[in-house]
Amino acid sequence: MTTLNQQALDYHEFPRPGKISVESSKPCATAQDLSLAYTPGVAEPVREIAKNPENAYRYTNKGNLVAVITDGTAILGLGNLGPLASKPVMEGKGILFKRFANIDVFDIEVNAPSIESFIETVVNISPTFGGINLEDIAAPHCFVIEKALKERLDIPVFHDDQHGTAVIICAGLLNALEIQGKKLEDVKLVCLGAGAAGLAGMRLLISMGAKKENMLLVDSKGVIHAERSDLNVYKQEFAKDTPLRTLTEAMHGADVFIGVSGSNLVSQDMIKSMAPRPIVFAMANPDPEILPSEAHAARDDLIMATGRSDFPNQVNNVLGFPFIFRGALDARAKQITEKMLIAAVKALAELAREPVPEEVLKAYNAKEMTFGKDYILPKPFDPRLIERIPPAVAKAAD
Amino acid sequence: MTTLNQQALDYHEFPRPGKISVESSKPCATAQDLSLAYTPGVAEPVREIAKNPENAYRYTNKGNLVAVITDGTAILGLGNLGPLASKPVMEGKGILFKRFANIDVFDIEVNAPSIESFIETVVNISPTFGGINLEDIAAPHCFVIEKALKERLDIPVFHDDQHGTAVIICAGLLNALEIQGKKLEDVKLVCLGAGAAGLAGMRLLISMGAKKENMLLVDSKGVIHAERSDLNVYKQEFAKDTPLRTLTEAMHGADVFIGVSGSNLVSQDMIKSMAPRPIVFAMANPDPEILPSEAHAARDDLIMATGRSDFPNQVNNVLGFPFIFRGALDARAKQITEKMLIAAVKALAELAREPVPEEVLKAYNAKEMTFGKDYILPKPFDPRLIERIPPAVAKAAD
Repeated sequence: MTTLNQQALDYHEFPRPGKISVESSKPCATAQDLSLAYTPGVAEPVREIAKNPENAYRYTNKGNLVAVITDGTAILGLGNLGPLASKPVMEGKGILFKRFANIDVFDIEVNAPSIESFIETVVNISPTFGGINLEDIAAPHCFVIEKALKERLDIPVFHDDQHGTAVIICAGLLNALEIQGKKLEDVKLVCLGAGAAGLAGMRLLISMGAKKENMLLVDSKGVIHAERSDLNVYKQEFAKDTPLRTLTEAMHGADVFIGVSGSNLVSQDMIKSMAPRPIVFAMANPDPEILPSEAHAARDDLIMATGRSDFPNQVNNVLGFPFIFRGALDARAKQITEKMLIAAVKALAELAREPVPEEVLKAYNAKEMTFGKDYILPKPFDPRLIERIPPAVAKAAD
Repeated sequence: MTTLNQQALDYHEFPRPGKISVESSKPCATAQDLSLAYTPGVAEPVREIAKNPENAYRYTNKGNLVAVITDGTAILGLGNLGPLASKPVMEGKGILFKRFANIDVFDIEVNAPSIESFIETVVNISPTFGGINLEDIAAPHCFVIEKALKERLDIPVFHDDQHGTAVIICAGLLNALEIQGKKLEDVKLVCLGAGAAGLAGMRLLISMGAKKENMLLVDSKGVIHAERSDLNVYKQEFAKDTPLRTLTEAMHGADVFIGVSGSNLVSQDMIKSMAPRPIVFAMANPDPEILPSEAHAARDDLIMATGRSDFPNQVNNVLGFPFIFRGALDARAKQITEKMLIAAVKALAELAREPVPEEVLKAYNAKEMTFGKDYILPKPFDPRLIERIPPAVAKAAD
């Protein structure tokens, strides 16, 4: 076992198992305190909420409480290991919500016999929460679940693996295009991976101006083209009438590569075959579709991003979900709309173009961080994120 | 609005709404911390749990996490006000679990269209938790729900309004009988109220030696007798072949009165008609079936307990549920058995017979607390509870 793995196990096990603790946010030392927190005092807020459900936002934690809910079918890069095994990830997600946006999270691992049962379960427990963050649910059933919940609930429902990832991709790509002197409307895009992140990313790019006819999606069976009979309805939406069949063929002349697939699937020759000044987002975890060192060795005019913190330009969801939910909760939004996602994209992209404060350089032990090929996205520990992103998202809420 | 009510609203609303906060229990300040809490470090505990589900107790908070779950059909003494309105009570319950036994609680308010749907919801989310505390669910459907969940889950399921209340009633009654020089096997009992608490209390008393033939249950329609055709199966279990019809008739010559019903239903004349050295537990909230001052004015040989903290002998569930769950979780018990409940009863009763430490007197601003008519149960802020009750419960676990 590697040192990191043992360190991670120790971190999770000692001094007590797990990573979260539920605490009282109000005084509860004395009998007098408890007479307010519980009987008899608690009866009055109960009556006030019974009179007007909106009062739940005044007298309970509902308005700051998000459920991170999973069925464990697509845990990180590890696959379908079931709900119980996903618990460390869901607790971790809760910690990120807290650390970055002071949002309280209950992680809920659901073992449902069917998609319908999963949906009903989330609907049934929804009075508890101010928002629902779906997590690590495999495509395509994540799309069915998300759609049903959005229709049935009047609190924000957000599938981070789709929309959170999409927001960061779009923000990074806007800036990369700016640096490379290209326009979203014009570029030829290849997306490798047609699951939750890929499909949501392409949809959001289209909403922001990218042309569907300039996009080629590629899955494990090759280019998603009109003659394939094995496509689910979500992939069909992107099927092209094209003679291209392989990733190699698709990459030829492309301006942008978006990888949300598997490790080492992209070769140096593919990179070489791309258009001038290409953009390569190789976000497979833990190992990208192509390592930055290899891509840069293949050509020197590209911009490269990955999912990893040890390379420049990390496409990291933590730049999105805490702040998007903070904005949605602050605005008491009933849903997280595309308009709100686009507001987050723009706020993130703009922030990366501003001078970086000294404290951020210090936190990352960096001499400089200047908008450019190796700095297209803000860093997670940038304190300006919580100041900028949530207000932009809240303002875009209806 | 009374001062207490306004104080309670302010307590719940300021400085931020609600009473709970979910915190990281591990360091999460730096990028290095987060690389253990989330990707890439978190993958290793995920794999360990996938290999062996028991590892969830090593690497996540599951083993210390209890769901306080309600449908809001029987909120305190307030009735069926729905799941959302119950949230202040459920958050408060969580605070009590934390304050007294360091157990983390997610309060889950369930809005299910049917009992079956409620049950399925709790089953589906159960991987999240180390135990389930059902709360404020009305009789008789609480019995159906509890039974189904116990059969389907391999973590402790506990309906506090039944079994928690039963444990405290039994502990107090054992001590009151000792003081009055009576035996549980011999006494004539009247129980007013045949809902969750009443039925569970009577069942536990029978398990500990009380005779069913010496019990009379009374509900809002009078004595529960064999000729009534309006009884649910749970009440039928206690139906007697008796000519008695009214509470007044039932009380005549009774040794013990257990009231879990409504305010002011018991008269001084009824108290006077009881056997010598009677025991009166008048636990209706906020106002008991008869006030201690009235009962004591009626006769001077009785022992009186209520549900209130401002009278002697408070029958308070907080003496039970935190410690019963602490014991069950510590023992990794798959259920909370009757044997474990009886262990809690005995440990509580024994503790009340011991000399009270100075710090407890101080906490209650009391000069003395000596086992006797006005001190038959320990006080909630007695630090010996957490030392004595959980080990007794854990020892009784199979």
